[in-house]
Amino acid sequence: MAVVPILPDEAAGAAARAVFADIRATRRTDLVNNFWRALAHDPALLKATWERLQAVMAPGALDPLTKEMIYIAVSVANGCGYCIHSHTAAARAKGMTEAQHGELLAVIAMASQTNALATAFQVPVDPAFRTEDKP
Amino acid sequence: MAVVPILPDEAAGAAARAVFADIRATRRTDLVNNFWRALAHDPALLKATWERLQAVMAPGALDPLTKEMIYIAVSVANGCGYCIHSHTAAARAKGMTEAQHGELLAVIAMASQTNALATAFQVPVDPAFRTEDKP
Amino acid sequence: MAVVPILPDEAAGAAARAVFADIRATRRTDLVNNFWRALAHDPALLKATWERLQAVMAPGALDPLTKEMIYIAVSVANGCGYCIHSHTAAARAKGMTEAQHGELLAVIAMASQTNALATAFQVPVDPAFRTEDKP
Amino acid sequence: MAVVPILPDEAAGAAARAVFADIRATRRTDLVNNFWRALAHDPALLKATWERLQAVMAPGALDPLTKEMIYIAVSVANGCGYCIHSHTAAARAKGMTEAQHGELLAVIAMASQTNALATAFQVPVDPAFRTEDKP
Amino acid sequence: MAVVPILPDEAAGAAARAVFADIRATRRTDLVNNFWRALAHDPALLKATWERLQAVMAPGALDPLTKEMIYIAVSVANGCGYCIHSHTAAARAKGMTEAQHGELLAVIAMASQTNALATAFQVPVDPAFRTEDKP
Amino acid sequence: MAVVPILPDEAAGAAARAVFADIRATRRTDLVNNFWRALAHDPALLKATWERLQAVMAPGALDPLTKEMIYIAVSVANGCGYCIHSHTAAARAKGMTEAQHGELLAVIAMASQTNALATAFQVPVDPAFRTEDKP
Repeated sequence: MAVVPILPDEAAGAAARAVFADIRATRRTDLVNNFWRALAHDPALLKATWERLQAVMAPGALDPLTKEMIYIAVSVANGCGYCIHSHTAAARAKGMTEAQHGELLAVIAMASQTNALATAFQVPVDPAFRTEDKP
Repeated sequence: MAVVPILPDEAAGAAARAVFADIRATRRTDLVNNFWRALAHDPALLKATWERLQAVMAPGALDPLTKEMIYIAVSVANGCGYCIHSHTAAARAKGMTEAQHGELLAVIAMASQTNALATAFQVPVDPAFRTEDKP
Repeated sequence: MAVVPILPDEAAGAAARAVFADIRATRRTDLVNNFWRALAHDPALLKATWERLQAVMAPGALDPLTKEMIYIAVSVANGCGYCIHSHTAAARAKGMTEAQHGELLAVIAMASQTNALATAFQVPVDPAFRTEDKP
Repeated sequence: MAVVPILPDEAAGAAARAVFADIRATRRTDLVNNFWRALAHDPALLKATWERLQAVMAPGALDPLTKEMIYIAVSVANGCGYCIHSHTAAARAKGMTEAQHGELLAVIAMASQTNALATAFQVPVDPAFRTEDKP
Repeated sequence: MAVVPILPDEAAGAAARAVFADIRATRRTDLVNNFWRALAHDPALLKATWERLQAVMAPGALDPLTKEMIYIAVSVANGCGYCIHSHTAAARAKGMTEAQHGELLAVIAMASQTNALATAFQVPVDPAFRTEDKP
Repeated sequence: MAVVPILPDEAAGAAARAVFADIRATRRTDLVNNFWRALAHDPALLKATWERLQAVMAPGALDPLTKEMIYIAVSVANGCGYCIHSHTAAARAKGMTEAQHGELLAVIAMASQTNALATAFQVPVDPAFRTEDKP
């Protein structure tokens, strides 16, 4: 169904297999999911994407579960079915409860409708919300 | 710039003014921002939207700041400039730090690019991510 | 394929089953379609969504078929396959002819291309289209 | 603000001016709005777009006002500010009332939120909504 | 799975079959893909879409492969799975290499993330990028 | 108008100023455009984005102008006004002619409308377009 073959380990090149190994070690699982196996056709893109993902999703000012829920929100708004599946699974693995999932979806639904209304009315930004362009 | 006049208090009808009063009381501010003043042309829609927003954004399994950041994420993906301004202001009012804002945006940017890649490859969902349709 | 199980009646809680009963009574059919069965995991969201849908889609200044066609147009632009299927079925049940469906799609296609062109050129809004911000 | 100059009549070529004349004659107004003046840089695209628009928006199985409201719905979902302004003005010129505008926006908002929910849950299409692929 | 039957030749009307014949002759293949068979329900829309596609995708200032890659980029951003499949196949038929495909996707991914960042920050356009509205 | 101040050189930190210096050296211009000045609030995100952009947009299997046009196509579909301005300027600086710009926009408009039609019909992917999932 993909527009490129989903590469099994034995069909991936050495550079891709090295990233696969890092995915397995980092996540402590044997599963290398299809996204990375599709990306493996372009080892440089695979490596850059995996490394950047690790940097972005690491614990910091926001905790990893909050980051996963933000990831789901963007994926829903962009209509990426694969990403919704993979990041909902990841959020659950990081402890997302049913109640949190329900509230996450309620916020996404609410934002989707007020986004549409603000756009439909072409509401001008209030001066109170503006930040000066110069510090 | 809006496609309807942004109604000042004196031009709003009684039903709309009642919602304005509730907005002021709830938020403890005199400001009724333009979104609600545009919606005031349709008092039933104004009331339904305001009441639903209060229910959705109330503290629950997720805290209010997390909900605001999810709201921003959806608004960015949907390209709603007004909503980005108003909810970034709301998130700051609820304590969002510069570091949290930076990480929020980094996650949004990351999700946007992997959404595009998963879509471009039309990656099939891994069996491991599937939930059985029957409980 | 859903990220939550699609709840059959016997797995739904009492609050969800009450909404299911209302769906059946209102629509005069035994079918409770998958959208509501997915939402049934969050009975409060299920109830709020179903009640708001009834209020919004009721006959008013616009007739129900026109509302269904507008719903299809939004669903196409947002790329929601499920919604396109369910609301195309609903529009047909409300009398949408093949000719009307064809014209609906032609308008959607036309709007999609001029939306892209206006955005690509970043065309400024004509003064003639502006509404004064004050009434 | 546009990425190309908005061409006044005297800067447009003969082919573009012929389309401008047709716009004026068809719409019985002297106004040639900015969209067409931006497109005038590419007279072939201008002509093809204008002619297709006339064919698509002509009265048929759907009346012109219904078509304008569908156009607005798509433009909102696609976030095209220019198109929302121009087609809201066109819908009003064709008789859209405040009440119809309000209901149009309520449907757009409702669809936006259920689109998000169906996508977030990745709800599978019900067999009842499927059309056989063969007639 | 489509919302209309995918018409085989024998179920298509004379006007649709004439377009099918032109598709076969132009592309030198017996395959008339599902997109056109779905459109065949509305022969006028089928004919207009096919003819416009031929005009737009013909060699000109841009070569056909570049046009196919631009088509893929738009289809990815719009989340159209069918279009990604059909135009990736078309690009390959026109000579797109694995390396070109990889770079195409890397650019799409890059643009998706900077689009999100520029939108999230609501960055104002630099005067240096503005074109005067008058020539 | 941005949600963060657009940082002038003197307000940017050392890490951000180092990226600004690299932008100036690479592009051989004194202009550091607003996108980078907004990103400068998060020097790590600024550096990662700039470095990745350089890698992705470098000449390779695709030439720089083709990459800029793909960037514009994605930015139009995502509705990013800032990005459309900046990358249209960049494409012109790399030699994009008026005729190429016109054809680029015609392809974007064409793709936007067939994306909408394929989505509206929910056209199933032809077996001929499918790639086997295993190599």
